[in-house]
Amino acid sequence: MKKDKNGKLKIIPLGGLEQIGMNITAFEYGNSIIVVDCGLSFPEDDMLGIDLVIPDVTYLKENREKVKGFVITHGHEDHIGALPYVLKELNVPIYATKLTIGLIENKLKEHNLLRTTKRKTIKHGQSINLGEFRVEFIKTNHSIQDAAALAIYSPAGIVVHTGDFKVDYTPVFGDAIDLQRFAELGKKGVLALMCDSTNAERRGFTMSERTVGHTFDNIFAEHKSTRLIIATFASNVDRVQQIINSAYKFGRKVVVEGRSMVNVITTAAELGYLNIPDKTLIDIDQMKNYPPEQMVLITTGSQGESMAALSRMAANIHKKVSIQPGDTIIFSSNPIPGNEKAVSNVINELCAKGADVIFQDVHVSGHACQEEIKLIYSLVKPKYAIPVHGEYRHLKAQAGIAESLGIPKDNIFIMYSGDVIELNEEKAEITGRVHTGAILVDGLGVGDVGNIVLRDRQHLAEDGIMIVVLTLEKRSNQLLAGPDIVSRGFVYVRESEDLMGEARVVVEDALDSCLGRRVSDWGRIKTVIKDSLGDFLWKRTKRRPMILPIIMEA
Amino acid sequence: MKKDKNGKLKIIPLGGLEQIGMNITAFEYGNSIIVVDCGLSFPEDDMLGIDLVIPDVTYLKENREKVKGFVITHGHEDHIGALPYVLKELNVPIYATKLTIGLIENKLKEHNLLRTTKRKTIKHGQSINLGEFRVEFIKTNHSIQDAAALAIYSPAGIVVHTGDFKVDYTPVFGDAIDLQRFAELGKKGVLALMCDSTNAERRGFTMSERTVGHTFDNIFAEHKSTRLIIATFASNVDRVQQIINSAYKFGRKVVVEGRSMVNVITTAAELGYLNIPDKTLIDIDQMKNYPPEQMVLITTGSQGESMAALSRMAANIHKKVSIQPGDTIIFSSNPIPGNEKAVSNVINELCAKGADVIFQDVHVSGHACQEEIKLIYSLVKPKYAIPVHGEYRHLKAQAGIAESLGIPKDNIFIMYSGDVIELNEEKAEITGRVHTGAILVDGLGVGDVGNIVLRDRQHLAEDGIMIVVLTLEKRSNQLLAGPDIVSRGFVYVRESEDLMGEARVVVEDALDSCLGRRVSDWGRIKTVIKDSLGDFLWKRTKRRPMILPIIMEA
Repeated sequence: MKKDKNGKLKIIPLGGLEQIGMNITAFEYGNSIIVVDCGLSFPEDDMLGIDLVIPDVTYLKENREKVKGFVITHGHEDHIGALPYVLKELNVPIYATKLTIGLIENKLKEHNLLRTTKRKTIKHGQSINLGEFRVEFIKTNHSIQDAAALAIYSPAGIVVHTGDFKVDYTPVFGDAIDLQRFAELGKKGVLALMCDSTNAERRGFTMSERTVGHTFDNIFAEHKSTRLIIATFASNVDRVQQIINSAYKFGRKVVVEGRSMVNVITTAAELGYLNIPDKTLIDIDQMKNYPPEQMVLITTGSQGESMAALSRMAANIHKKVSIQPGDTIIFSSNPIPGNEKAVSNVINELCAKGADVIFQDVHVSGHACQEEIKLIYSLVKPKYAIPVHGEYRHLKAQAGIAESLGIPKDNIFIMYSGDVIELNEEKAEITGRVHTGAILVDGLGVGDVGNIVLRDRQHLAEDGIMIVVLTLEKRSNQLLAGPDIVSRGFVYVRESEDLMGEARVVVEDALDSCLGRRVSDWGRIKTVIKDSLGDFLWKRTKRRPMILPIIMEA
Repeated sequence: MKKDKNGKLKIIPLGGLEQIGMNITAFEYGNSIIVVDCGLSFPEDDMLGIDLVIPDVTYLKENREKVKGFVITHGHEDHIGALPYVLKELNVPIYATKLTIGLIENKLKEHNLLRTTKRKTIKHGQSINLGEFRVEFIKTNHSIQDAAALAIYSPAGIVVHTGDFKVDYTPVFGDAIDLQRFAELGKKGVLALMCDSTNAERRGFTMSERTVGHTFDNIFAEHKSTRLIIATFASNVDRVQQIINSAYKFGRKVVVEGRSMVNVITTAAELGYLNIPDKTLIDIDQMKNYPPEQMVLITTGSQGESMAALSRMAANIHKKVSIQPGDTIIFSSNPIPGNEKAVSNVINELCAKGADVIFQDVHVSGHACQEEIKLIYSLVKPKYAIPVHGEYRHLKAQAGIAESLGIPKDNIFIMYSGDVIELNEEKAEITGRVHTGAILVDGLGVGDVGNIVLRDRQHLAEDGIMIVVLTLEKRSNQLLAGPDIVSRGFVYVRESEDLMGEARVVVEDALDSCLGRRVSDWGRIKTVIKDSLGDFLWKRTKRRPMILPIIMEA
C-alpha cells in the first residue's frame, strides 16, 4: 500500500454512544469508504411500542459510490442486526469470518435478501483489499466464536479495531487471541487503537470461558437426582458446548428450547463449531421417555425476556415444559443493565414453584477488563486512542486507562455519533459532523414512528385519553349531535359517572359560549373545549389525560 | 399476661410479598388486633401512570372495633408511607419511637391529619399494652435511626419481629442492637421469629455504617481541589452526619439540596438525631460566596429518579447548580433493583459534562446478611420461622438458613398476602385467607384506576389509538356525517396519508355493508367496523392500535 503522509483518514461513528448497541463506523479515505459492523439496538424505556432501533445511514447513501462493503467483527445482534434493513437501501458486499457469515445468512434468508447480497468469508490472518483500504482479520476471543479484530490499513496509517473481545488463553474452541500479531502491528507503528470499553470500569482480568465448564461439572455432580434447566445466551456456543460436555460426562440427555437457541445451535453445528456426541441431543417431545435426573434443558430466557422459553415455563404457560418442585434452574448469565428486575421476577416465580435456582458464579463476561485493555494498549502502542463500545462512562474509563499508560490526553478522543475525526501521523482532530440518527422499527414500519408519535404514546400511557365528539351543521354551525364524551385509560367508568356528567356540562358550557359568541373557527372551538375540560379535570383529579375534540360536519 | 395453651394467635400479612414494600401485618388474638407497619409501594413497570400503591385494608375495616393501633418499626416509606391513606379509613393510634413519630407527623401534616390522629412515642426497652397484646420495642440498627424490633406478647406465646435490621456493633449514633434482649427472650421461649430477609442471599456480615465515614475521609483527602457532590438516601441521617463530619474536618461548607433530603434533615436535627457544627450548613444561594473546593453538596437523586436534584443537575435543568468539569460526584448508595439503568444514565450524563464520578464502595447496606440472620436465630431460638421483608427468592433463602440451623421444614412458613396462620405451642398452620389487594393511587384518585384502565393504558402505549366517528340519524339510520378517522400515537400522519385514506375506504365499505343489510344495532355496527379496520391495519403494519368507533345520534 502506498503511503501518503499528507493524506487524511476519516473515521465517523454512525451510531453507538447515544444508542448503545447500534455499532456502525465508517472509515473514509479519498474515494473509498468501508463500514465496520452494522448493529441494531433495543428500544429504551421511553420508546413505547418500538421493536428495534436501527441506524440512519443517510451519510452512506449520499456517498454510495464510495462504499466498498461492510466488514463485520462478529455475529452478535449489536454488530449484525441492522444489516438486512440497511442492505435494502445500500446493497454492498459483506466480509466476515465463517460463523459470522452463517449467522448473517440466517437473517438474509428471513428478509429474502440471500440471493441479492454478495458476501465473502474471510479467515483469521487473511486480508482483503477494499478500494484504498486493506483490512486484516485478527483472531480474538469473545462470548461468541469467530470474533475478529481488524487491522485497517490506509495510506495515512494503520488503525486497529478490537471489536468486542477478551483475552482467553484457554478458549473452549479454537485458538487464543493472536497477541503476537497485535505486537507485530505495534512494532510496525499503529496510528490509532479503537478498543472495546464495555468492562473498562472493572478491575483485573476476565476469567476464561473454560472456568464455567468446571462450575458446570461441580453442579452436575452435586445435583444427580434432579432435572437441570440451564438458561444462557443463545449465541454463546462455547457455553452450550460445555453444558453438552457435562451432560455427556454425567449421562444426561440434552434438550434445546427457544427459537433463537435452536437457530444458533443448528448453524453452529452445521458449520462445525459445536461438537455434539451421538444420541445426546433429543427432541423436546422425547423428554417424557426419560426420568428427570437424566435430562438437561438448555433454554433461552436468561434475561427475563417475557416471551422467552424460561419465562414461559416460570409463568406456567410453556406448552411442553412445566417446572416441578425439585427442578434445579441455573442462570448461566448476568442480567444486562436494565434487565435486573425482569430476571428477578422470573427467579421469584421459579422459587415459588419449588425449584432451586442457582444464579451466582455460573458466568464469565465476554469483554476485556482493565488489565486486558492495558495489555492490548501495551502491545499495540497506538499514537491515538479512540475508545469504542460502551456507554459514556465506559469510554471515559478507558480514556483514563489510556492516559495512565502514557498516551497524551490530547490524543484520546471520545466520539459521539456523527463526529468526523480526521487523522494522520501529524495530527488528529474532530473536523465536522455528518447527519446520523436512530430509526425506530415498529412492526412492519421502519421510520414511520417519530418523536410526535412517541410523545403521544407517552401521554396516552400516563393518563389515557378523553375524546369529545360533536356534529355541527355546515355554515349555520348549529349543533346537530353531541357533545359526547368517551374516555379510555383515564378512570374506571362506573366509579366516575359523576365526573363524566360534570365533564359533559363543562364541555357544553364551553361550546355554548363559543356558539353564542358566533365563533365559527372550528380550531378555536376545539381549543376552548380542550382548555376548559383540561382545567376541570386537573382540578378534580390532578391528572392530564390527552383531550381530543373532534368536530364533524353534517 | 395470662397464658392460654389452647388459645391461638393469628398472623395475617395484608401486603408484602406480591407488592414489595407494602409492609403491613395484622396480629389477632381474641378480640384484639394490632397492626405492624403500614408501608406503600412504588408502581411496577406495567402500572402506567400510577404514582403509589397502598394496601387494601378491608379486613381491618371489617374488624374495626378490634383494631387497637399501628405499631411501627421504623420511618422508611415502605413501613409508614400508606399511613395517611389508611388512617382516613381507620382512625386508630400509632405507636413508634421518637424519630419515626417525627417522620410520620410530617406526613400527617401534609394530609391534614395531625389534629385527628393519636400517636405515642415509645422508647427502646419500653412496652405498651394493646388489648390482649403487649408489645416491647427492642433497639436494632438500620439505615435509618431509631429502628426497633418488636417482641409481641400474646396469651399464645411471644413473637419476635425484627423489622428491617442489621447488626452494627459500632453505630454512628446511639446504641448497638440489643442482642442481650434477643437472647433473654430466646431463653424465655419464643413462639415465632419474623426476620428480615432482604439480604438473605448474601454471604457474610454487613459492614458497619462507620466504615463509610472512613471512606468519606479518604475521598475528602484525595480531592482537596474540587467541589464534592454526594448523593445518598434522604432518610439515611447517619450517612449525612458522616458527610458533615468529614466536611467539618476538611474545612468545607455543606449545602443540602432536594426536598425530601431537606425535610428529613430538618426533622432529624430538631429531634436531636443530627449534630451540625455551627456555620457548617449554608444556604444554596450562598454557594457563590465560596470557592468550589470549600463546598460539599449533599443531594437526593442517588437512584436516578428523574425529578430529583442530582438528575436535574446532570440534565442541566437544575435552577441553582450546574455541573462543572472537575466536579467530583459520589454515589453513596447502590441502585435499588429496577433502578440500575436510570442510575447509569445519570452517571453517563455527569461523565459527559467532565465530572469524575465515584460509585464503587461508598455504601453499606442497612440489612442483615446471612451471618447476622444466623446470629438472631441462634439467640432467639424460635419454634416457628416466618421470614418477612423481601421477594420470594429472599424469603426462600432465609427459609434455607432456618432449616440449616435445625428448624424443621414444617415449622417454616412463607406467607402470601392474605394468608392466615394460626399458631400456638402445639401447632402452627395456615388455616384460611382474607381479602387483600393493592390499591393504585393516581393523582388525587385512590383506587379509581383498576385493571381495565391499566390494560387500556398499556394498549394505548403500545400502538396508539384510531378513532372512527360517524353520525347517524335516529330511527332512519341514515349517515349524516363521517366516517372520520383520527389517530394518535399510531403513526406519523404526514407519512401515512395513503394508509389513512385506505383505512377510510375500509370503514366506508364496512359501514355500507351494515347499512345495506339494514343492521340497526349500533353495537353490531361498531364491531364490524372494529374488526375490518383491525384486520386491515394488522395486514398493512403488523400493529394493533386500539380502535374506537363512536356513533353519534342526530
